[in-house]
Amino acid sequence: MRIPFDELHQALSRVLLRFGFGLDRSSMCARLFAETTCDGVYTHGVNRFSRFIATIQNGCIDVQAEPQRIAFFGALERWDGRRGPGNLNAFVAMDRATSLSRDYGIGCVSLRNTNHWMRGGTYGWQAAESGSIALCWTNTLPNLPPWGAIEACIGNNPLVVAIPRREGHVVLDMAMSQFSYGALASYRAKGELLPIDGGFDAAGNLTRDPAAIEDSQRPLPTGSWKGSGLSIVLDMIAAMTALGAATHQLPADPLKESGLSQTFIAIHPAALGSEEELCRIADDIVKSLHTCKPLIDGQSVRYPGERTALTRAENLRLGIPVEDEVWNQILAM
Amino acid sequence: MRIPFDELHQALSRVLLRFGFGLDRSSMCARLFAETTCDGVYTHGVNRFSRFIATIQNGCIDVQAEPQRIAFFGALERWDGRRGPGNLNAFVAMDRATSLSRDYGIGCVSLRNTNHWMRGGTYGWQAAESGSIALCWTNTLPNLPPWGAIEACIGNNPLVVAIPRREGHVVLDMAMSQFSYGALASYRAKGELLPIDGGFDAAGNLTRDPAAIEDSQRPLPTGSWKGSGLSIVLDMIAAMTALGAATHQLPADPLKESGLSQTFIAIHPAALGSEEELCRIADDIVKSLHTCKPLIDGQSVRYPGERTALTRAENLRLGIPVEDEVWNQILAM
Repeated sequence: MRIPFDELHQALSRVLLRFGFGLDRSSMCARLFAETTCDGVYTHGVNRFSRFIATIQNGCIDVQAEPQRIAFFGALERWDGRRGPGNLNAFVAMDRATSLSRDYGIGCVSLRNTNHWMRGGTYGWQAAESGSIALCWTNTLPNLPPWGAIEACIGNNPLVVAIPRREGHVVLDMAMSQFSYGALASYRAKGELLPIDGGFDAAGNLTRDPAAIEDSQRPLPTGSWKGSGLSIVLDMIAAMTALGAATHQLPADPLKESGLSQTFIAIHPAALGSEEELCRIADDIVKSLHTCKPLIDGQSVRYPGERTALTRAENLRLGIPVEDEVWNQILAM
Repeated sequence: MRIPFDELHQALSRVLLRFGFGLDRSSMCARLFAETTCDGVYTHGVNRFSRFIATIQNGCIDVQAEPQRIAFFGALERWDGRRGPGNLNAFVAMDRATSLSRDYGIGCVSLRNTNHWMRGGTYGWQAAESGSIALCWTNTLPNLPPWGAIEACIGNNPLVVAIPRREGHVVLDMAMSQFSYGALASYRAKGELLPIDGGFDAAGNLTRDPAAIEDSQRPLPTGSWKGSGLSIVLDMIAAMTALGAATHQLPADPLKESGLSQTFIAIHPAALGSEEELCRIADDIVKSLHTCKPLIDGQSVRYPGERTALTRAENLRLGIPVEDEVWNQILAM
């Protein structure tokens, strides 16, 4: 079924109020879940809501905890998330980073002791909406074997890069595994092969068979050795600047994943350029992509975030697709 | 043959002096080429030196031009490279970014109108050596089809991420193509297949055959759609913050590639943490990699930059491997 944005927002807010959130924070947290769903990232929107509630119930998330600045030097700050809700913590951290970028041209907030931020792209859209370029990332529990290993000892550490643009922000949100376990399950359910190799089978051969990778637990890092290396350095920067936990210190159980480290960098390009100049540069790049000879006639190359904006507009118009079972679950909470 | 570092450095300096560099700048530029070679990145060290000289001769590089700061706001600066030597320009930009990071905790320099920076990792090692974390990247001429296109309209835009560490800096240097054309040629020359799919053949099928990819001119972006997206956003940030040229505006001929845009971000972690704490965090992550169950017994997972440090030590001890032909060419210049 399709649920209007406001109705979804209210339903989620109501549940969060029941689980101890204050009025403003329940509304904000619900808004982030509703926007994620509206943007078509169902895995990290409503479909993840019951797991989010479960981590409140098992004590991973302290719904009352608000993030606190614990150290600062110029445009660099360290915050402690105090195990509060990950999306609210990340929103505050990115808000502060963009504020620093307006004061200093660039700003950086590192956050420790936080929880899963749900959809990383959220904080990219947030920064872009405030006029800032952003790079931010999180570490995760160990869920990915690094290149050259068969044990999952690095995280898929999503990286988000965002650029403000009047005609539609550019937002890249990429995890360091080529396919998430959610994506593997979805291909398997449809009986489809992956479009490219996604991991190793039990015999150690590269494969496009999603079930074989689920069995071996050896998904490929994005770009093999490259995404493996990128995952390692992002973890290291987040943990060092936050003086927080690194992936190897996080519990391997997704329901107990807590105490993450994250880094939020914002750049305020308008500090050194007019909005017109900046937009022209971004628009010209978008135009160069749209006029690049496509593989399939009529299917032009998309910039990161382009499809999201289309999905969002459609879902705002028609209502947000929510599975009956998920919706009934939320209403019953 | 193997050439001692100092002898290589002097030979290159002598050539640069002949081509109009001043004394200090010839020594510095030669040092960067010698260090790149010493670190085992032969493609961007001595093996690229004659092409570097060719771009001086054809007017792409103005050997006298020094980079100039043209705008600044707090910790964010814009510099113009004035088409000077790309490695000297990038070295100045990173030096300034690390200096800003000591003043503000984080700093960013964007550089426009510059030339090929040769090995990107150079500026990562430089930042780490000065105690700063760094993220920097460059755009390039269009040399890579984005995901969904058959025309090369994005660059392979290398991204460098570096972290200072007493026991060996961590430096990732990754281009956004899974294999460079140099790597494809090298696999072909050895009669080897690529370890993973590296692009499409003429029929549009994914292939590990390097020659088929050289023919089709359709190498794969790193991680397919992911590296394609990352290339696009890195280009956009560099061009916007530098108010410089984007990939689509750069000449497609490698010998005329000039006017690039680059971004250098430095974070000074010691502003908010003791060196002991910071090193412990990095060391623990390295240890977790070294104890991760490897694919092949005895071949432990390496952190980015680990092999470089070993190669450097060996080449400093035994002399730097230089092909006879390349060495004679340098001596004859």
